[in-house]
Amino acid sequence: MNFIIKISIIIVFIIFSASVFAQKKVSKMPVCIVMHGGAGNINRENISKDEEEKIVNVMTEALDSGYAMLKNGARSIEVVETVLKIMEDSPEFNAGKGAVFNSRGEHELDAAIMDGFDLNAGAVSGVKHIKYPISAARLVMEHSKHVLLTGEGAEEFVKTYHLEMVENDYFDTKKRKMQLEKIRQQGGEGKMRYWDVKHGTVGAVVLDGYGNIAAGTSTGGLTNKRFGRIGDSPIIGAGTYANNNTCGISCTGVGEFFMRGVVAYDISALIEYKNYSLEKAAGKVVKEKLVKMGGEGGIIGLDKNGNISVVFNSEGMIRGFVDKNGKREVKLFGE
Amino acid sequence: MNFIIKISIIIVFIIFSASVFAQKKVSKMPVCIVMHGGAGNINRENISKDEEEKIVNVMTEALDSGYAMLKNGARSIEVVETVLKIMEDSPEFNAGKGAVFNSRGEHELDAAIMDGFDLNAGAVSGVKHIKYPISAARLVMEHSKHVLLTGEGAEEFVKTYHLEMVENDYFDTKKRKMQLEKIRQQGGEGKMRYWDVKHGTVGAVVLDGYGNIAAGTSTGGLTNKRFGRIGDSPIIGAGTYANNNTCGISCTGVGEFFMRGVVAYDISALIEYKNYSLEKAAGKVVKEKLVKMGGEGGIIGLDKNGNISVVFNSEGMIRGFVDKNGKREVKLFGE
Repeated sequence: MNFIIKISIIIVFIIFSASVFAQKKVSKMPVCIVMHGGAGNINRENISKDEEEKIVNVMTEALDSGYAMLKNGARSIEVVETVLKIMEDSPEFNAGKGAVFNSRGEHELDAAIMDGFDLNAGAVSGVKHIKYPISAARLVMEHSKHVLLTGEGAEEFVKTYHLEMVENDYFDTKKRKMQLEKIRQQGGEGKMRYWDVKHGTVGAVVLDGYGNIAAGTSTGGLTNKRFGRIGDSPIIGAGTYANNNTCGISCTGVGEFFMRGVVAYDISALIEYKNYSLEKAAGKVVKEKLVKMGGEGGIIGLDKNGNISVVFNSEGMIRGFVDKNGKREVKLFGE
Repeated sequence: MNFIIKISIIIVFIIFSASVFAQKKVSKMPVCIVMHGGAGNINRENISKDEEEKIVNVMTEALDSGYAMLKNGARSIEVVETVLKIMEDSPEFNAGKGAVFNSRGEHELDAAIMDGFDLNAGAVSGVKHIKYPISAARLVMEHSKHVLLTGEGAEEFVKTYHLEMVENDYFDTKKRKMQLEKIRQQGGEGKMRYWDVKHGTVGAVVLDGYGNIAAGTSTGGLTNKRFGRIGDSPIIGAGTYANNNTCGISCTGVGEFFMRGVVAYDISALIEYKNYSLEKAAGKVVKEKLVKMGGEGGIIGLDKNGNISVVFNSEGMIRGFVDKNGKREVKLFGE
């Protein structure tokens, strides 16, 4: 009996030590999170103090939630979904509730998520009734053989997983209605003006304690966009990309240029093939190649060592991060 | 009067010389064309002699037409559209007439085209009534601000350009109906079997006498694919890419892996960033990286110097080219 008690104490001690060691191992690895809430002509004239405060509050809430999850050992893919759902819930951003109107006066939502561990990816485009498109993207990744499902096909698929469905007008907000009317007056239905636009796409890139990078992007696209238009957000390699060996990237801006430039993957390729740092690669792509094409916008990214990059060629970009030292920062305007 | 006649003769002579010089300049530059008609388990057991002959005939017709156009000074983008329309017209291939059925027993077609001169690109996905999807992709590229239009939105857009529209059952063929029934018996609706599949996607990459590379891809996707699924063909950087400074690429195979691997752009990136030859870059991506992911299929490509590559990791691939020396070749099976 005495022997059994001794053995039990030893076993409990071993398990306890192992779990402490495992937690230490996790906490030693850098964890960090970087997010964006869109790029464009974001300046103090276009954004009121009140609006700024709301944006900063939501970004802060999302960042803090995500960072707390990471500190508790959550996986990066889980964190990306959770923080982007917070952004999709907020009418301040052009994703989920608060998405822009297309030329038909409807909302068509796009989202993508990618796991840098195995390069698995999922995306939805043109969905109209899914409350959290980023969750739909994750379902496509984890439960279908496909990468990209669109429209009714995507909605039919996610319904079997009991994802929350809403009427299309759930996404309505007064602010977006006014933006649509203004753009219609300026250019007529189906026309877009690239300038004078704030893109409120949301994105998140996360490095977890296991060395896994995940990236996600969610958007309502461009105000007054043509019905059926797919932008860069749900396109793997264009608006969203993650690879544990290089980096994770989420983009925002005029999507067509990001698609033609294969922007997210291009940054990864410069790291992999030319040994560029993330900062140098992102600078080359966003401040040189994209500018040459006439493409406005920006990217957020982080690499496997927890280095964070935020690069944009537009006036401003809603961005924030908690870095590997736990330092949090949220900014909206150009420096 | 005499003076005017003399001047006129001199002017006519100058114009004549200039045009001869211009034509010579064109004919000195290498022109070439490479095409595919899909990859998969293409072997002598799966393809009858009769079927083989039909495939070779259509490929030969398309290649010869394209090459003749190039010799007459046509632009690469023009040639890509023309030769892919020939393939879309042929019931032998899984594009346009002869496209496979999705899980709903319908046809949903995808196509993309890209111009390597200015990295402009256009694509359509999930269209059901456009006779020549590759022409729709070109319209999106040249007449919209968007890169990718899907479903009804794409059809509504091209209607204004009087593109030929058809009923969805125009694309029906007995062969594809039987394939759908066989797959349904094996796996049930919505299921796919990646093995035992011949992918009949069509693609073309062209270098014209002005040094411009263009690439295009057109497909019906995978038999019994889920309604709303978008594959790699209409995704710029995944199934289709062209850049005058590097190469043009068109892919065929199980699209999901080509999307996750950003295959077409990855080959271009290896040329641009690591100075690989096209052949070495394509080999690295198709025979190493794709194989590691479990992705089956192949690519065709050519570079700015008119070097042609055809690389596949499947049993066979329907492929053909006319090289810069005017040599034509069409093959179906593995070596």
